[in-house]
Amino acid sequence: MYVILVYDIGEKRVGKMLKLCRQYLNWIQNSVFEGDITEVKLKELQQRAKSIMKVEEDSIIVFKSRDLKWLEKEIVGKEKNELTNFL
Amino acid sequence: MYVILVYDIGEKRVGKMLKLCRQYLNWIQNSVFEGDITEVKLKELQQRAKSIMKVEEDSIIVFKSRDLKWLEKEIVGKEKNELTNFL
Repeated sequence: MYVILVYDIGEKRVGKMLKLCRQYLNWIQNSVFEGDITEVKLKELQQRAKSIMKVEEDSIIVFKSRDLKWLEKEIVGKEKNELTNFL
Repeated sequence: MYVILVYDIGEKRVGKMLKLCRQYLNWIQNSVFEGDITEVKLKELQQRAKSIMKVEEDSIIVFKSRDLKWLEKEIVGKEKNELTNFL
C-alpha cells in the first residue's frame, strides 16, 4: 500500500513526530512523508503517533492508495534530496 | 482529476499562497489542500504559485490521482471544519 502522510503538530512535539515518521516513511517535505507500508505497520505508526500528539491541537492526515501507479507527483521549487534526508 | 497539494512556504509568503490555493482547492490542514480540478486549472494555479514562491526556498508538491476512488483518507486528531475554513 502506498501512503502520503501529512502532519500539523505543535512545535514542542514536532521533533519526536518527525523521528517517528522517518522510521516508517520517506520524508519529502517539511511535514510530508510518503512510501510503501503494510496495513499493520501503518496501524503501528498511527498508534505511536497518537501517543505523541495532542489530539485537540494536532492532526495527521494519511492518504492511502493501493497502488503507486494511480498517483503522480509533481514538485515545484526546492526538492528535499537524500542528503538533507540524513541530516 | 483529484489532487492533493502540500506547500512549504516561507512565512512572509504563506498568506498569499493560502489565499491563492483556496481559490482552487479545499483547505484541509495547515498547508494541505485537496480537491477536484482540471488539468488546465491546475496549470494556472501552479503558474500563479510560482510567481509567489521563492523557488530556492519554497516548495509545492502536487499528488494527482485520476480518480478519487483510488485514494482513501484517514484523519487522526483535530479536523479542519467548514467554519475554520471560512475564517
